[in-house]
This record gives sequence, structure tokens and C-alpha cells, in this order.
Amino acid sequence: MTVDISTLTLEQKASLLSGHDFWSTKAIPEAGIPSVVLTDGPHGVRRQAGDADHLGINESLPSTCFPPAVAVGSSWDPELAARVGAAVGREGRAFGVTVILGPGVNIKRSPLCGRNFEYYSEDPYLSGVLGAAHVRGMQQTGVGASVKHFAANNQEHERMRISADVDERTLREIYLPAFERVVIEAKPATVMCSYNKINGIYASQNGWLLTDVLRTDWGFAGAVVSDWGAVSDRVAGVAAGMDLEMPGSGGATDRQIVDAVRSGVLDEALVDDAVRRVLALTELPHDATDDLDVDGHHALARELAADSIVLLKNDADTLPVKANTRLAVIGAFATEPRFQGGGSSHINPTKVDVALDAIRDQAWTDGVTVEHAHGFSLDGFGDAALIEAATEVAGRADIAIVFVGLSDSDESEGFDRDTLALPQNQIDLIQAVAEVAPRTVVVLSNGGVVSLEGWHDRVDAIVEGWLLGQAGGSALSDVLFGHVNPSGHLAESIPVRLEDNPSWLNFPGEHGHVRYGEGVFVGYRYYTTAGVPVRYPFGHGLSYTSFSTDDLCIQPVGDAEVEVSVTVTNTGDRAGKHVVQLYVAGGAAPVRRPVRELRGFAKVSLQPGESTTVSLLLDRRAFAHWDVEVGRWVVPAGEYLVQVGADASTVLREQAITLAGDSIVRELTLSSTVGDWFGHPIVGPLLMQGMAAGMTEEQAQQAAENPDQLKMVESMPMQQFLAFTQGAIPTATLEQLMRLSTAPTVPASL
Amino acid sequence: MTVDISTLTLEQKASLLSGHDFWSTKAIPEAGIPSVVLTDGPHGVRRQAGDADHLGINESLPSTCFPPAVAVGSSWDPELAARVGAAVGREGRAFGVTVILGPGVNIKRSPLCGRNFEYYSEDPYLSGVLGAAHVRGMQQTGVGASVKHFAANNQEHERMRISADVDERTLREIYLPAFERVVIEAKPATVMCSYNKINGIYASQNGWLLTDVLRTDWGFAGAVVSDWGAVSDRVAGVAAGMDLEMPGSGGATDRQIVDAVRSGVLDEALVDDAVRRVLALTELPHDATDDLDVDGHHALARELAADSIVLLKNDADTLPVKANTRLAVIGAFATEPRFQGGGSSHINPTKVDVALDAIRDQAWTDGVTVEHAHGFSLDGFGDAALIEAATEVAGRADIAIVFVGLSDSDESEGFDRDTLALPQNQIDLIQAVAEVAPRTVVVLSNGGVVSLEGWHDRVDAIVEGWLLGQAGGSALSDVLFGHVNPSGHLAESIPVRLEDNPSWLNFPGEHGHVRYGEGVFVGYRYYTTAGVPVRYPFGHGLSYTSFSTDDLCIQPVGDAEVEVSVTVTNTGDRAGKHVVQLYVAGGAAPVRRPVRELRGFAKVSLQPGESTTVSLLLDRRAFAHWDVEVGRWVVPAGEYLVQVGADASTVLREQAITLAGDSIVRELTLSSTVGDWFGHPIVGPLLMQGMAAGMTEEQAQQAAENPDQLKMVESMPMQQFLAFTQGAIPTATLEQLMRLSTAPTVPASL
Repeated sequence: MTVDISTLTLEQKASLLSGHDFWSTKAIPEAGIPSVVLTDGPHGVRRQAGDADHLGINESLPSTCFPPAVAVGSSWDPELAARVGAAVGREGRAFGVTVILGPGVNIKRSPLCGRNFEYYSEDPYLSGVLGAAHVRGMQQTGVGASVKHFAANNQEHERMRISADVDERTLREIYLPAFERVVIEAKPATVMCSYNKINGIYASQNGWLLTDVLRTDWGFAGAVVSDWGAVSDRVAGVAAGMDLEMPGSGGATDRQIVDAVRSGVLDEALVDDAVRRVLALTELPHDATDDLDVDGHHALARELAADSIVLLKNDADTLPVKANTRLAVIGAFATEPRFQGGGSSHINPTKVDVALDAIRDQAWTDGVTVEHAHGFSLDGFGDAALIEAATEVAGRADIAIVFVGLSDSDESEGFDRDTLALPQNQIDLIQAVAEVAPRTVVVLSNGGVVSLEGWHDRVDAIVEGWLLGQAGGSALSDVLFGHVNPSGHLAESIPVRLEDNPSWLNFPGEHGHVRYGEGVFVGYRYYTTAGVPVRYPFGHGLSYTSFSTDDLCIQPVGDAEVEVSVTVTNTGDRAGKHVVQLYVAGGAAPVRRPVRELRGFAKVSLQPGESTTVSLLLDRRAFAHWDVEVGRWVVPAGEYLVQVGADASTVLREQAITLAGDSIVRELTLSSTVGDWFGHPIVGPLLMQGMAAGMTEEQAQQAAENPDQLKMVESMPMQQFLAFTQGAIPTATLEQLMRLSTAPTVPASL
Repeated sequence: MTVDISTLTLEQKASLLSGHDFWSTKAIPEAGIPSVVLTDGPHGVRRQAGDADHLGINESLPSTCFPPAVAVGSSWDPELAARVGAAVGREGRAFGVTVILGPGVNIKRSPLCGRNFEYYSEDPYLSGVLGAAHVRGMQQTGVGASVKHFAANNQEHERMRISADVDERTLREIYLPAFERVVIEAKPATVMCSYNKINGIYASQNGWLLTDVLRTDWGFAGAVVSDWGAVSDRVAGVAAGMDLEMPGSGGATDRQIVDAVRSGVLDEALVDDAVRRVLALTELPHDATDDLDVDGHHALARELAADSIVLLKNDADTLPVKANTRLAVIGAFATEPRFQGGGSSHINPTKVDVALDAIRDQAWTDGVTVEHAHGFSLDGFGDAALIEAATEVAGRADIAIVFVGLSDSDESEGFDRDTLALPQNQIDLIQAVAEVAPRTVVVLSNGGVVSLEGWHDRVDAIVEGWLLGQAGGSALSDVLFGHVNPSGHLAESIPVRLEDNPSWLNFPGEHGHVRYGEGVFVGYRYYTTAGVPVRYPFGHGLSYTSFSTDDLCIQPVGDAEVEVSVTVTNTGDRAGKHVVQLYVAGGAAPVRRPVRELRGFAKVSLQPGESTTVSLLLDRRAFAHWDVEVGRWVVPAGEYLVQVGADASTVLREQAITLAGDSIVRELTLSSTVGDWFGHPIVGPLLMQGMAAGMTEEQAQQAAENPDQLKMVESMPMQQFLAFTQGAIPTATLEQLMRLSTAPTVPASL
């Protein structure tokens, strides 16, 4: 039923623009408008029955905790992301939830951000593809998604008031494209605006962001909902396109809206637009199905988790664990799993798999024996004795598997880390175990990147388990024993030193501002361009089998699209999944570009010896940069390299292609430089002719002898050049040339 | 004679605010106002007799070319800078010049800046002390100085229109302090505004810069003159405090000023202020003395040049050249000296010393023999044959001295470099010579830093000669033979890779903007803080003798000043000069600070075995940072390290000191974070008491058990915290606490 909003009073309309309480919108029964429920997500449903909060503090109803975004990001598998979205959506339906908040597609600008576990990647393309898949999967169940946190919310420190100071090109190329892709491809029911300011203006009242970019440029038709408590100036928010304030303000901001309309400060049409968008949410299902498949979803969570695990290192095929191996399983995380992050996404799981139990379950069939030692305690007490006991166990084993990682007090929503290091007691443990064990495997549980320095070279294998959701313990066991062949790849670089990260100088900002000083050079875009070594590059991930990549073939389609195909073969003796990573190395441009950027990928599953040809289309955006002068995406003409990478640092195959690109003819003015004038496709040649014709022989010779002088004036605006040369070019000629600079047809000479 | 400006018409007054021609101001004979002459400087007088230009293109009258700023910076000797200023001033008097443009105290943000040879250092303190000395020396001769280019003009690329986008703290701490010191300590007759925009506003019409900072904050009483052609909107310039437009506009902008006053757009009082400041210049001497001491100034130029040379490397005491050595002198720069940069500072020298001649002159007395080979040509032709000939000569020698460097086409005012590398033919030459010569010495002539990679480890000694002025050839010979013991130190870091430079990502900007993304972390401030290795650090320089540094003693004076003394001993067998470098390592602060910053230095001359105690005062600025919230310099309370460094990377002695600092009590508002509230010196304790008193036992226990939850809310603004906690703190209490946050007296409890 569609509500005719002309039948509503201004007060009623205003009331619809803020929540009834913490988790629901206001109903107007007499107008047939129901209340709908929004809950926290994104990797599970946090439906609170008792005291409501948005910090993960109070309990919620049990639901399945699927792998958080950090794990999904490492899967490089949109299908997997879609299955998470769909499963969470089904659970939302069971609880009668209309909108589940998420996915979070913010860019991991710094590895220190406390909420990185809720985000996919440092790369906007990977984030956008996975985010769109999650939304698609979820919305197919009927539940609406809320892509968040829009935008440039890349840290927890002072997140509610800090201004992210970012130039527009960087926003358009790095911090917005994931949202753009999700909005355009998956049409989420809502977009959630972030707490922070962008270039001084709160996201919740940023008209450029919420209207110009989101609605005008991208065509978003859904509702914008505030992050919980993100509203500062409510009236400015309505004007900017911020539709639904959550949680409710007890009516205070509704009255502000009414007053603003009455006093002429706010156009009532803007209120109507917001109301229409909020009412659209009530068209979504909002009755509980009470149909929660606890066991089925747990099994699904396990499958998805296993496909997200990244095998970072595996010297001498230490993994998978072979039959009849004596295992020492060590470390608190083997028995006290950390599988999700703290904060608003915190799920009350239906059950939790413990790695040690799963390993014991799987061990006996192969004659594997398991001894266990705690190794360290999460509170850091009694570590010397725990390490000693662990080395005893490790000394008797063939392989020691050490479960280390970060605890909730190390990382969470709400604050950022200040180090990449594991707690010292865990580093001490790894070193002590590696000293005595014949082989050592480290299994990591962590939401944000941890440093591998100080112990990386002493261990034989490293399994990056991130936070894997409630079935993570058994998923890890599946990979350790080879029941699942690991196929995850890093969605973020693992740097050698924190100081190497390009945001390090400016993170997390000071005095209310964080300067995005590194511009577009985020993550691997910086490391590869500046030639700064990393421990493991973006895209890295090992398998128990091997793959070859051959027959790269690229074919232009039109002016700025390219069809790419490549053949992948499983050259090992085990089935496995492989990710084809497609990068584009930018050509000549009026802006500085990273040496390569991820522009396409596909995950394929191959039996031993099996080959497949993967085809991908690189659209014009794959070659474009945001041009702030003309305010749009521009593909410069010239040569580009299309590269298939094993990771962002390792090119397997590459091929060059020349694109006609966009012919941007920039208007010449007196502020344009001499270089602009002489380099202009239309005016330059005319100018050269004119100059040559007007010169005496002596002048021409002098000019030829002094190329340095030309170099000196190249970046001088024409106005100053004329002043300095007492008008070398007559005014009439100049004016004619300026007109010609954007003329559709041009004479051969003046 | 003081002119009564009330007798001048508006037209007359306006006419005084722009030049008569390229190099002189307008006279009004009937009012007794003479014309005065301004010429390019700063390391010599560029008095043009014929066609005028500001690009160093047309000839000027012969004058002494003293060492450019790049050399003076390396001297670390304010006395030397003052002697340059005084000598140039005397020559200016000889030519009847009233104002000589310079010194340039811009910061060397990037080693690529084409005009770095005209600037002193990457450090604002060193730049300011040397710039102030130059101005003092010059103005003692009666000639006025013009400190330039004000401000944030740190590149040549698009210098006339680019916007330097820099945050205020970075401006105040890095890009402005050298100007501030020159203005306050040396009171230059004029300040020259730069071409570029600062945060979008042309320097020539930037009221914040030219009035708020320059005049209000620093008390500048002189005239602001435009860089030649820097005026964009003349009327806006007068309003902003830009007094004298150069060169003249043929009266066009004078009329704009008159019209603006007549139409009420511009306050005539502002015109009067500008006129008074321009007229003050006519009080300076403007008659020619015709007294040019050509030979005396050449000798002085030689002395000053020798004291600016930096001995970078000297393995196995290769230098100085010993008696009876067979020398091979190789390289084009040995016979075609490069001793100054291109552009407006280009001097027509009275004579030029050639290194090869000077070496031959000095060689015979010690039985040293000299063979010579060109080694390479500046145009890059015939290099293979030249290298072959050079290796023949080098193979017969005991020591090969290779003169390499950059030519005018590699670097100049007007454009920036895009590489740090020497031309490849010169690198090939060094490598070939080092292969055959028993010992190899490289002598560099370059205005900007060049990379030493690829050949550094193959040679025995490196002499950094920068650009040394017209007597550079003999000064280099003085150092090579040990007639002068080198005492120069690097005023800028020599990086391993260009990509290591912190400005690299953002230099030289794009689409009209250059983002100073590295903030205050310029030069050594970045390398030392981020732990990025350099080839040679800021402050590095060897001597033919050795020095010890002992007995560091620091003594607080008042709240935020520290007296420092240290004993320096010449422990070698040769007289020499030593630079005491004093760094301060910042304490706790609400802003990110470099690990150490240069805050004092002194150059002392010591005979073998001689000791001296150097005393330096660190004033409060040495410990302060610019606080954008309170808009002033703040010294945070806490511990600081006072360090004596051999260079920026090598601490010789250090001592800690605790300063009471400034007690900044920040006002609390609802936008202040929970952390601000609990950390507030007055309110924090009251709040803790109140919370403890109001809690139930259960609540207190829960709070104690969940420190992570407190960490999560720490950076939440109080307003949101209250919304989330349903008003945990009563409104009345909050209001009381906000009032108390800045109250002079405070109750013990609420």
C-alpha cells in the first residue's frame, strides 16, 4: 500500500524522519504506516531484546556469526560475500528485521583502524565488488541493506567529530568507488552516513556527498540513514538529503524540522522527498518468519570461513598436516577462539567452534596425535611458566601449531591501535616454541593486520585466520588438515614496519583534522609505486596446489574498453581455487598515478590438471582518473599495461594496449601556462607557425640556442609571459586563439 | 626629508604603489619624492643597463658573484652570511641601488625544486638565522634587503598560479619561521611576496599572510613588494597589505586603485599606509658611490666559498692531497666551472676562477703533478672516447679527482628537476675512473642535491662543492690541498632514493594544487622520525681534524627556557672549525612531533688541542608547537631531551629536562570528547568523584571489569555519550562543569 503523503500533516511527516526508539521507525497507524526495525549487522543479526545500545555492550538474541568482512575480503569471492548476505538476510527475516546495517565498505587506509575487521580491503574495487554481492544476496531475501559508513570514515579515533580532509580526486578514486559500485549495481535500500566530517562538513549534513554525488551522480533512490547518533544539525541534514535520523531524539529534532519549514528556512518539498524515501522502507517485509536454521547456518559459516583463510607461508610443504604426525597445539586462541570484533557488530552466537576440539576430532582418523598447552594467557599473567610448559609439549611434537592473535582489548570498534605488534608474551612464545619444535606453524586470529617481524623467518608456516565467525575453529582445522585447500588472498598489504604505511604520518590526525596526505596512494598503491618493500603484498595467498597462468589475450572494444582473457591451469595434484588478479598500469595523465591498480578479478575452482579460460571486461573506468578540472572521469589517450598479477607486486603476464581515450580539449585562458598554450592540440601548432613567421632570423637562432629559457617560461601563465615579454603575442591574436581553443572546427593556420 | 602625504593627490599616491619600469619606483619631483632602484640579488648585484628582465636572460653590469645560498647554508656560519650580505650591499651602493632582492629563505621541501640553490636549508631555524645575518650585514651598508619569497613558494613548477595547500601548523612551524626570524631580528626594508597561492589565495593578495601574520603577529614595519609579475588583483592586494607592485603596469593598476577608492571598494587609509611604507624606501641611500673593490671582493668570495664546502666522505685520509702526489684532474667542471644558478639571480661576474688552473697553481710548490682529461662533455657528445682518455690519465695517477655535477640545463629557476641522478655520462665516467685509479675523489658542482647512489661506495672521497660563486674554483683547490680545512655541513639531507623524500608523493602537485601532505615532517624531520635511512643526514660534514664534545650541561631558566653549555675540543693535529648542533626532542603534545628538531647551533674555530665552552640559550620556542586550537605557540608540560648531534641522525650527548610548560586549560563543551572531559585537569577529578559516588556497587564492578568499553567511548563527544547513555550525567552538573573548565578557582568537589 502506498501512502499519499499529502494526507499527512507537517508534524507527522517530520516525525517519520527520526526513529521511534533505538531500533525502530515511527508508525502512524491512522495513516496505515507501520514501524519497521533496523538492526546492526553485517555478518549476523544483532537483534536486541532488552536494553538497546549501538556499542555491542548489551546482549542480543542468539544468531549465527558469519565471517566478518575482513575474512570475506580475503576470500576474493563475490559469491561467498553474497552467501553471507543471503544467510544474514534470512536470519533477519526470522527476527522480523527490515533493514540490517551493513556491509561496511570503507577503505582500510591505515592498518591501525580499530574497525578494519568490519571492512573488506584497502582496495576500492575489491571492496565494491564484495559489498555489492553482499547487498545483492541480502536483498534477495527481502531484507534491506545499509551500505556504510558513507564516507571517509577510516578511523575510530575521534570518529564522531574529526574532519577527514581529503581532496576530491582521492575521494572519487579511493574512498567513494566502493559505495558507488554498491549503489549502482546492488541498489541497497539505504545508505548509512558516517559520523565524521568530510572537509569540515559533517557527513550527516553534507549536501555534496548525500545529494550531488550519491543521488545526482550515482542515481541512488533509497533512503539515507544516519549512523546512530551522527546527526548534528538536523535541519541542515534534511536539506542535504539525510532522510532518517537514528536513534530517535524523543521528538526534539522533529520539532526543529517543523519550525524550519514554518519559518521558511527549509523547503517542505525536501521534507516530502525524505518522507517518501523513508516510507519506501515500510514496503519491505517486516513480519518475523521465526525460521532460523541454526545448524545449517553454522555449517555454512564453517564453509565460508575456510574459504577465507590465507596461507601466507608454507615452507617445505609443512601443511597440510600429514598422517601420523605428533601435533602440539599451543596458545590461548586454540581454546578461547577470537572470531569476531567488538562493538556494534558483536553477535551473540548460536554456538562456537573451538579449534583444539576440531583438530582433535579430525586428528584420530589419520593417526595424528594432539598434545595441548596454553602457552600464554590473554591477561598476560604467568607467562614464563606457560611458555616453559609449551616448549615441553612442542619439543615432543613433529609440528607445533601456535594459535596467537589479538584480543578484544587490543582492537575494537571505538578506538584505533597504536602498534601492529602482537602482544610481547605471544611473540616470546612463538620464538620459544620455534626454538624446540621440529616445525612450527603459526595460526593468527586478528581483525587488523599484525606485524610478522621478529618471528616470521623462524617459523615454517603461517595461516592468517583473521576473524572467521563462530565456526572459525573448525574451518581452521579444515585447512590445517587439508580438507579444504586454502584459497584466500590478502585484501590488504602486510607492511614490514608501521612507519612504511603511507598514512602513518597523518594518522589519526590532530586538533580535529586528519589530513589524507598520501592522496590516492593508499595501501599497495603506495608500496608498489614508491618501491617500499612489504612483508606480504596485497593479493598474496598460497595454496596446497599450484597454478599456471598463460595465454593472456587483450582486445580493445570501442575507444576505452578492453576484453581480457587468460588461461589458468591447476598444475598440482590437488583440487583448488585460484584468483585471477587483473591490474592496469596507468598511462600518461595530467595526474600522478599508482604504478598499477586492481581493475578486475575472478576466482575459479580447478581439479588437478584442469584448465579454464577466464574472460574479464575492463570498462573505461579501469583506465580513467578523476579530473578535477573538468569534474568527471577521463581516460587519457596513450599506452596502458594490462597485467595479471600473482599479487600487487608480482606481475605474471602483461600486455600493452594503446587507447584513443577521451579527447579533452581544455579551454585556454590567460591563466593557462605557456606550456598549456604550446601543448594545446589546436592552438599549439598555430602558435608555433605564428611565432616562427614573426621571428627575425636572429631571434629564431637565439631561441634555438637557448632551450633552457623556454623550459623556464613553460610553467608561466600566459598573462605574466606577456607582461615579461612586453606583449610578444598581439592581443587580437591571443583572443582569436582563446576562442579557437574550444572551437569545433579549426583553420589550418591563422 | 619626510613627505607629507596629505599634500598628494589620490592619483599621485596610487602611482607610488607600482614601479616606474622594471627596476625603479616612480618619482614625484614636485613633491620631492625620488625614484629608487631595486635589483635582483641575493649573492651579487644584477644591475641591468640594457634590456631589463627578471629571468637572468639579458646581461647586467659586472659584479662579484658570491657563494649562493646553497653554499652559505652549508657553512652553518651566520658571520659568513653577514659578510656576503655586507659585500653585496657595498656593491649595491656602488651602483646606486636602494634595495637588493633577497635573501631567499624558502624551505627546501623537495630536493627537486629548481631554485633550491637560492635557498639555505630544509630547516627553518638554520634558514632564519642565516637569512637574518645576511639582512643585517647588507642593511649595515645602507642598502635595504627584501626577504623572499613570502611564502610557501617551494617549487618552480607552475609557481605563478599553483596553490600551496598547507595547514596552519605546518606553515607556522616550517614554512614561516625563517621569515619570522628575519623580520623580527633583522628588520628588512622589504618583504617580497611570492607568486603562488597559499590555500587558494594569491600571496600578493593574502591578508592573513601579509597583514595578520607579517604585521600583526611579527610587527613588520617595512614595505611588501611583489615578486616581479606576482600581482593578480591589485586592489585586493592593497587591501591585503601588498604595497609596491613590480614591475610597473604602465599605470593600469594605479587607475584601478583610484577607482576602487572612489567607488568605496577600497579604504583610502589603506592606500595611505602603503604609500608611507613605500616612501620609507626613499629615505634609504640611492646615490651611486662607484666604489667597487673588485679584487678584494673576489678574495672574499674565495674565502667564503672555501668555508662552505662539505667534505662528505674521506676514506683513509685520501684528502688533503699530500706532497709529491700524481693527480689526474678529470671532468668538464674542472675547466668549465658551474658556480651559480640560472634565472633572476644570475650575475655577470667580474672574474671566474677555474679549478684546474687553481690546482695547477697550488700543485707545484708541493711537487704535485697534474694531468688533465675532459672526461665528458656538457652536451653529452663523444663520451665514450672522452671516458677512455680519462681512464688512461687516471691509470697513471695516484689520485683521480673527478669534477662532476649539474649544468644549467639540468637545473634552474623556472623549472624543477625530475630526477636526483647525475647525467649518465658522468656516472659512467666516475665508475670507469674508479676502476683504474688507485684513489678517486669526486668533486660535485650542483645547486640541488644529487644522488650518490651507484658510485658512492666505489670512490674514496667526495667533496660537495654546491655552487660556490665566481671564486669557487680556487676555493675547491684550497680545500683539496688542505690550505683550508673543510668545515661545511649539510643543510639538507641526501636521501638514498628520491622516493624516500616525504614530499615525493605530492610534488609538484596537479591541477593547480600542491598538497603539503607530509605536514611538518620535512627533510630530516621525516627521515629521523620514520626511521628511513639516508645516504648522508642533515648536519653531516667531515673535517681534516677531529673534535670531541663533552660536559653537556643544561640549566632551566624560568618555565620554558634552558641554558645549554658544552665543551668542544679539537682532538686532531690541524686547526679547524666545528659546528655544535643542538636538537630538542619534543615531549608529550596533542600533536605529532618530529623525533628531534634543530633549535640552536654555533660554529667555533679551534687550534689543535684547544678546547672551548659553547653556551647557547634555548628559548621557549625551542620547545613549543603551534596549537591551532588556541592560535598560539604552546610549550606542553613534560620531559624534553636536549641533544648535541654530530648530525640529525647521530646524537653525541643528550640530557633530559622537565619543563613546567604552559598550562593550557581548554574549555569543555558538549563537542569535547569523553576523554577530554575525564582528562581535564579541573573537571576530570570532579567527574570521577561524582561518577564513583553515583554508581551502584554493581555498576562500579561492571565498569572495572570492562575497561575496553571505556576505551571505546573515550573519543566520543560528550553529546553523543549522553544520548547513548540516556543522560548519564545530569544537565545541571554538566553545565556547572563546563563553567568550571575555564574557571580561575575551583572547588575541591561538586
